[in-house]
Amino acid sequence: MDPKAQNAKDPLVLFMPSGRRGRFKKGTGVLEAARQLGVYVESVCGGRGICGRCQIEVQHGHFAKHGITSAADHISPLGAKETRYAEKRGLLDGRRLSCSATIEGDLVVDIPRDVQVNAQIVRKAADTRLIDRNPAIQMCYVEVEEPDMHKPLGDLDRLKLALERDWGFSDIMIDQHLLPQVQGILRKGEWTVTAAIHKDMETARPSLIALYPGLKNEAYGIACDIGSTTIAMHLSSLLSGLTIASAGISNPQIRFGEDLMSRVSYVMMNPDGQEAMTRAVHIALNGLIEEVCAESGVDPLDILDAVFVGNPIMHHLFLGIDPTELGGAPFALAVSGAVHSWASDLDLALNPGTRVYMLPCIAGHVGADAAAATLSEGPHRQDEMMLLVDVGTNAEIILGSRDRVVAASSPTGPAFEGAEISCGQRAAPGAIERVRIDPETLEPRVRVLGVEPWSDESGFDLLSEKTGVTGVCGSGIIEVIAEMYLAGIISEDGVIDGALAGKSERIVKDGRTFSYVLWEGETRLTITQNDVRAIQLAKAALYAGIKLLMDKQGIAHVDRIGLAGAFGSFIDPKYAMVLGLVPDCDLDKVKAVGNAAGTGARMALLNRDYRREIEQTVTAIEKIETALEPKFQEHFVHAMALPNKIDAFPELEKVVKLPAKTVSEPSNDGPTRRRGRERRRQRG
Amino acid sequence: MDPKAQNAKDPLVLFMPSGRRGRFKKGTGVLEAARQLGVYVESVCGGRGICGRCQIEVQHGHFAKHGITSAADHISPLGAKETRYAEKRGLLDGRRLSCSATIEGDLVVDIPRDVQVNAQIVRKAADTRLIDRNPAIQMCYVEVEEPDMHKPLGDLDRLKLALERDWGFSDIMIDQHLLPQVQGILRKGEWTVTAAIHKDMETARPSLIALYPGLKNEAYGIACDIGSTTIAMHLSSLLSGLTIASAGISNPQIRFGEDLMSRVSYVMMNPDGQEAMTRAVHIALNGLIEEVCAESGVDPLDILDAVFVGNPIMHHLFLGIDPTELGGAPFALAVSGAVHSWASDLDLALNPGTRVYMLPCIAGHVGADAAAATLSEGPHRQDEMMLLVDVGTNAEIILGSRDRVVAASSPTGPAFEGAEISCGQRAAPGAIERVRIDPETLEPRVRVLGVEPWSDESGFDLLSEKTGVTGVCGSGIIEVIAEMYLAGIISEDGVIDGALAGKSERIVKDGRTFSYVLWEGETRLTITQNDVRAIQLAKAALYAGIKLLMDKQGIAHVDRIGLAGAFGSFIDPKYAMVLGLVPDCDLDKVKAVGNAAGTGARMALLNRDYRREIEQTVTAIEKIETALEPKFQEHFVHAMALPNKIDAFPELEKVVKLPAKTVSEPSNDGPTRRRGRERRRQRG
Repeated sequence: MDPKAQNAKDPLVLFMPSGRRGRFKKGTGVLEAARQLGVYVESVCGGRGICGRCQIEVQHGHFAKHGITSAADHISPLGAKETRYAEKRGLLDGRRLSCSATIEGDLVVDIPRDVQVNAQIVRKAADTRLIDRNPAIQMCYVEVEEPDMHKPLGDLDRLKLALERDWGFSDIMIDQHLLPQVQGILRKGEWTVTAAIHKDMETARPSLIALYPGLKNEAYGIACDIGSTTIAMHLSSLLSGLTIASAGISNPQIRFGEDLMSRVSYVMMNPDGQEAMTRAVHIALNGLIEEVCAESGVDPLDILDAVFVGNPIMHHLFLGIDPTELGGAPFALAVSGAVHSWASDLDLALNPGTRVYMLPCIAGHVGADAAAATLSEGPHRQDEMMLLVDVGTNAEIILGSRDRVVAASSPTGPAFEGAEISCGQRAAPGAIERVRIDPETLEPRVRVLGVEPWSDESGFDLLSEKTGVTGVCGSGIIEVIAEMYLAGIISEDGVIDGALAGKSERIVKDGRTFSYVLWEGETRLTITQNDVRAIQLAKAALYAGIKLLMDKQGIAHVDRIGLAGAFGSFIDPKYAMVLGLVPDCDLDKVKAVGNAAGTGARMALLNRDYRREIEQTVTAIEKIETALEPKFQEHFVHAMALPNKIDAFPELEKVVKLPAKTVSEPSNDGPTRRRGRERRRQRG
Repeated sequence: MDPKAQNAKDPLVLFMPSGRRGRFKKGTGVLEAARQLGVYVESVCGGRGICGRCQIEVQHGHFAKHGITSAADHISPLGAKETRYAEKRGLLDGRRLSCSATIEGDLVVDIPRDVQVNAQIVRKAADTRLIDRNPAIQMCYVEVEEPDMHKPLGDLDRLKLALERDWGFSDIMIDQHLLPQVQGILRKGEWTVTAAIHKDMETARPSLIALYPGLKNEAYGIACDIGSTTIAMHLSSLLSGLTIASAGISNPQIRFGEDLMSRVSYVMMNPDGQEAMTRAVHIALNGLIEEVCAESGVDPLDILDAVFVGNPIMHHLFLGIDPTELGGAPFALAVSGAVHSWASDLDLALNPGTRVYMLPCIAGHVGADAAAATLSEGPHRQDEMMLLVDVGTNAEIILGSRDRVVAASSPTGPAFEGAEISCGQRAAPGAIERVRIDPETLEPRVRVLGVEPWSDESGFDLLSEKTGVTGVCGSGIIEVIAEMYLAGIISEDGVIDGALAGKSERIVKDGRTFSYVLWEGETRLTITQNDVRAIQLAKAALYAGIKLLMDKQGIAHVDRIGLAGAFGSFIDPKYAMVLGLVPDCDLDKVKAVGNAAGTGARMALLNRDYRREIEQTVTAIEKIETALEPKFQEHFVHAMALPNKIDAFPELEKVVKLPAKTVSEPSNDGPTRRRGRERRRQRG
């Protein structure tokens, strides 16, 4: 029945928030109308009024914008099924069961996106984004015919018939592990069961992956971002979309190598290196599964779907693939497309039928995590030109809009993470994270992680006794160097001005160059000329990669910047721009987007349409290999200057007064050292 | 290109043995023409002239029947690819590679069904039936593009592209266990590999299940009949269709219970009974796999497909399903449809990607073995009305023709297998298998298994010293009772005539009844009145089941009888008919069909079309539950008489003179005892 073919006198129904609308004959069920319009409304019991998943809210009044006036009698009065459900389970005021309510006049129907039927499951505060649901798992309650000697169809075969009759699934496959259980479950449920059906792609046959006696009104999934440093996991209800627990842990592979390339080296040097690292990450994941399940009271056997993202090396090691090829040109991925697998094949302690979906990788250095971040931030869904940057040992860079998206990775090295910096350290209590330098006195003020006041505010000394002041973390390094530049301590080509040594004791001679003393205490923390150089190299590599993508897009200006990951969450966009990590942009449109990879993974978990979207997007993304682009070197050289030798920063200068340019050649050691790092990466 | 749309002046090509024909432009490749006509010609290398699988033979001369005259120049001369192949691998005289040869005039092309490219693999003599091939596994040689930093597709993704480009497979799935291997195999094969693609149903997505470097020009499959007593396995080449090794073994489950129902009882009495029996059959199967592989020199990892059949209880135990439900009404199968699974899930020591296919079961007592026998003997493909009988503890009975097929099982009990018979034993050396009784003297002549001469021929005494004469096996029991009837020792109602005790010392009093002394030696073997009764009960159950199916078909006469299984192979059809095990039929059309279940399994292994054929056939078969049919008792009572109380045997009487009927009521203990057995079966 095509809604558009309906008579103009039939009631008009508008579903929100999707905005889909259509005319339906009076007496049409609201759930039926939603289905016809392609509005996703959950229902486990198939319209029997027992699962309560199909709740809606009806708005009454005059909606001029939509040309709809809705009165109380435009929807059927509370029916027997609803009354029974409300008595048994409770139904919030104004809520209706769409499987029971029928259309009796023009209606505006709200689909609440957080229908919750299990009171004990509390919504996680961290869950900020509600995701439209269309999960790959569908819970289907059916009543199965009892065995009949006249029609000797098997129990499973009658179950399949019921699933076809009530839910339209034909040609269902069944997991081997369920075969021995079907008879017992059917009898325990007295010929009513809830089948968990997995259907990801439209072209795939549906699979029966789990079976429960009677009504099973909940199913869960996990979304997981396997980072080189941290593994983060979210547990979500596949039926409400809510995230109900989250947990994170250090990646235990760190003991095999701090950064990615050292882990690849470990595999190359140790015959069982890959197996050991794969096992380590599987064990860590099982620990996280236990943790999120303990936190939420969910049985791991009720987790039926799992989505994983990670950079290419984490992706390969998770799948048990030797990452050696990723350690050298041509950086060949074993598999770039999305991976469909089984949790049991990956030694995950979930239901034996649980499926695993891994997002596609974009290129040898631009992984499934970057794909997930893309899915989350959606440059491909925007008219504006968006730059999405995830800074780690390699920076993953995505630039594009609705028309075209390009991607690259740039070998920034670990300087932004505090490695290669003399006073660098991880973001942990005691680390300097914020810095301000007085341009007159050159005296710094700092803020330390774990200590609320700034160093010149009262209480700092007392409070910092516990943590100490032990080093400078990534965001602190960005700020101190940017502030040194703004205070005139370093020139735009990155040289610490030794002439200032006479003006301030903070400037000290250090061999043939000068250093800036950021902190004098139990530990003396200085920013050396080499530290400045390391940051210049890293930021030049990042900027050159971005610039290359801007060339490909033929643009000189980006509309919007998303800074992803932990680094992106803590740096101040202004200082990132002062240093020239990112190009000029309206500072209001530069945003930390947090763990965008994790959000993208959750989207793919809760809605299989997002899987297709990112698969198609990744196929369409143009991958730029920086090592093969002659212009990369040129951009790199220009980007060594602060903020940049040739690019202007008019938007930034509305907010910050940049020092005047001097006339000096850019440092020349950059490309050489960068090439050295590139060679190391190629040697793996 | 539709062959029918071709110009009538184009050459006409006829493919044999299929008889498909079409007109093709001169210069068309023979392989291409075959593909267009749907003639299955193997090719692993995709037309590169290296696998040699696409061999054909061209017949020249005038073929009046087909209106074709073919001369030597109607096919292209030996090309470079063929010459190279012939030099390297050898090409039999007259053979051509259809990927190289082109059509140059009218042609008659023979597709030899036993193309053999591995000389060391010798064709098994037992392999009598050639089966048209269209296996679920296809071996696909491809050249894969090398990695390219400009196009960062993964290695697997480029392999998939090659498989789509050269073989037309899109949307390929990949087994998880292969992911870690893809890169190494591609590099070992220097970017040429052979992919084993599994595609069973048309609606299923193809799966990459195994991958080999370079050209892999062989793949194997096993077909296996899991009988209650014996497990038989055949190893076949999926590329030539030849069976290259066979092996059999006693079912080790016998130690848990001799017959099916005692095994079900064992499961019910022992908490781990099902697991133990499942494990036992898996271990036995792995032993058989080792045996067929050792015999043929085949690597078990090269076995990529496996087909299993068995009666419902063997079927369930093999799949790890508790068979308890099959022990009592309503005899519910856990699954009746075909089962698709993985060898690894069933603990079979084959390739990790090997798939398992199990034929559908027809009903709770008519299993996948009966379905396989149906597939093999094809009543559903015939115009004639065919009766197919497999006698075991239950007899499985199929009756039908092209129009309609009906099936039932009948509780014959183990009498035909020698159990319940005082002198009964298994078919083993020393067992009497043939009996003739002189109607005048009532003296018997016998033939003993393992001894060539009859007992009245010279050499018998000497030769039988080794074996002894230890008992009577199934076929011997049929013959001795039939001969006793023909000699007038027992009446048509089965009573041993005590009046003959005066005429012959072979008739002896035995309590209130009489016995016949069949053998006097170290062991004295007598046929007692109870033995005769046991056979009468068994044969009456079988005949009543058959009669019920004849009623359903509305027929009084069958055109053709197939006797399947070991029992069917050894009994003489004439004696079976004298006893009235089977209805009257032209004796020339009563045939032992051997292990029809095993043949059906091989067909399903080698040709996935047969899988669809038997799935559809089983769905269409009407299942008759004898326990629910009131007429069964009536037929049973009539069938207690020899050969039958009311049915005539005119065809049999052309060959054998049956004794004149006496006027006596049929024995009345039959139905009572049968019901007792039925009850036992229901109690399980």
